[in-house]
Amino acid sequence: MTDKLTRQLQFLAEADKMKSILRQTYITDKSRQENSAEHSWHFALTALTLYEYCGIEGVDIGRVIKMALVHDLVEIYAGDTPAYDAIGNADKDEREKAAADKLFSLLPDEQAAEFRALWEEFDRMETPDAFYGSAVDRLQSFHNIYLSGAHPWIKYAVKASQIYQRMMPVKTALPELWAYVERVVNEGLAQGYIKRDGE
Amino acid sequence: MTDKLTRQLQFLAEADKMKSILRQTYITDKSRQENSAEHSWHFALTALTLYEYCGIEGVDIGRVIKMALVHDLVEIYAGDTPAYDAIGNADKDEREKAAADKLFSLLPDEQAAEFRALWEEFDRMETPDAFYGSAVDRLQSFHNIYLSGAHPWIKYAVKASQIYQRMMPVKTALPELWAYVERVVNEGLAQGYIKRDGE
Repeated sequence: MTDKLTRQLQFLAEADKMKSILRQTYITDKSRQENSAEHSWHFALTALTLYEYCGIEGVDIGRVIKMALVHDLVEIYAGDTPAYDAIGNADKDEREKAAADKLFSLLPDEQAAEFRALWEEFDRMETPDAFYGSAVDRLQSFHNIYLSGAHPWIKYAVKASQIYQRMMPVKTALPELWAYVERVVNEGLAQGYIKRDGE
Repeated sequence: MTDKLTRQLQFLAEADKMKSILRQTYITDKSRQENSAEHSWHFALTALTLYEYCGIEGVDIGRVIKMALVHDLVEIYAGDTPAYDAIGNADKDEREKAAADKLFSLLPDEQAAEFRALWEEFDRMETPDAFYGSAVDRLQSFHNIYLSGAHPWIKYAVKASQIYQRMMPVKTALPELWAYVERVVNEGLAQGYIKRDGE
C-alpha cells in the first residue's frame, strides 16, 4: 500500500470518532443524545428528501450531500458547540480552525484542500449549495429537538426570537417549510418550553 | 403544509430509528456497537474518500452516496442481519422486502419509487454504482471490525475463505485496497481471531 492510501485509511479511522461526539439534540425515542455521525447522515437524507422544496436557484444536491458528510468533522477535536450556547460560540471559529488544521492534514494535500474547501464553503453560507445545506442542517436539528422533548430549548431557556433568527435560512431555502417552523414554535410557546421575549 | 410534505417529515422522523439499529461491528474505541445510521454516514464518507481508487468504469459518486444514505433503511423494520449469520440470512430477502413495502409507503409515490429503486439497485450489485457501493460498504465494515477488536469474526468463528468471499467485490472495485484486505486477514490468522479452513 502507498503512503497516500495509508493516510486515507487513517483519516477514515479518525473520522470514526464522530460517533462519540454528543450533541444537545436527543434521538426521537428520547433514550440518549444524538451523535455527530448519525446527525450528518440524517442531515444528508433530509437534504435529499426535501430537495424538491428548495427555493434557491443553482443548488447541486450532490455537492450539498458531500458538505453534509464533512460539515461536522472538525468536532472530533473542537467538540460540538450548541447553537444557543453564547459562551461556547465566542471562540468556536478559532477552535474549529485549529481542529481543521489538525484533521485535514491527515489526508493527502489535494484531498485535504478539497474537503477543507467544502467545510469552509458550508460554514460561510454564501453559495447556494452552502445556504441550502445550512438551512437543512438547522431544520434536521429543529425537527429532532421538537420530536424528542425540546431538551436544548429548555436547557438554554431559548426564546422564540432566537429560534426564528436561527431558522431564518429556512424561509428562503425551504419556503414551504416555514409554516412548519411557525407551528412548532407556537406549540412550544403555548406549552412553555419555548420562552417569549422578555420572559 | 401539504399532506405530501407532512408524509415526508414523518418519513424523516421514522428514519431516526436507524440510530437504534445495532450492528455486530463496534466503534473504534470499542465502547459499544455501531448503529446503522452512523455506519451509513461512514460508508458514504469512505466512498467519497477512496473514489480515486475506483477500478470500474462509469461510476457516479453522487449516486453511490445517495445509495449509501438509503441502503440500510429497511433495517428499521427488518433489523440488521449480520453478514456471517447463516440463519438470519436465510429469510433476509423476504424480511427486507416486507420492510421496504412498509417504509417506502410512508413517502409520496414518486419519491417512494425513487428511494426504493436506489435500494434495490444497491442490493442487486449489478450496476457500476451499486458494485462500487457494495465494495465500499463491505470495506467500511471490514476496516471497523479490524480496528475495534474483530467481534463479529470471533463471534461467528469466521474463516479466511468466508472473509475473502465477502470482500471479493473490493478486488475489482478497489483493486489497490486488496493488499490491505490480505494484510488484515493474515494478521487475523496469525493472531487466531480469523480461522483457517478446516479449523
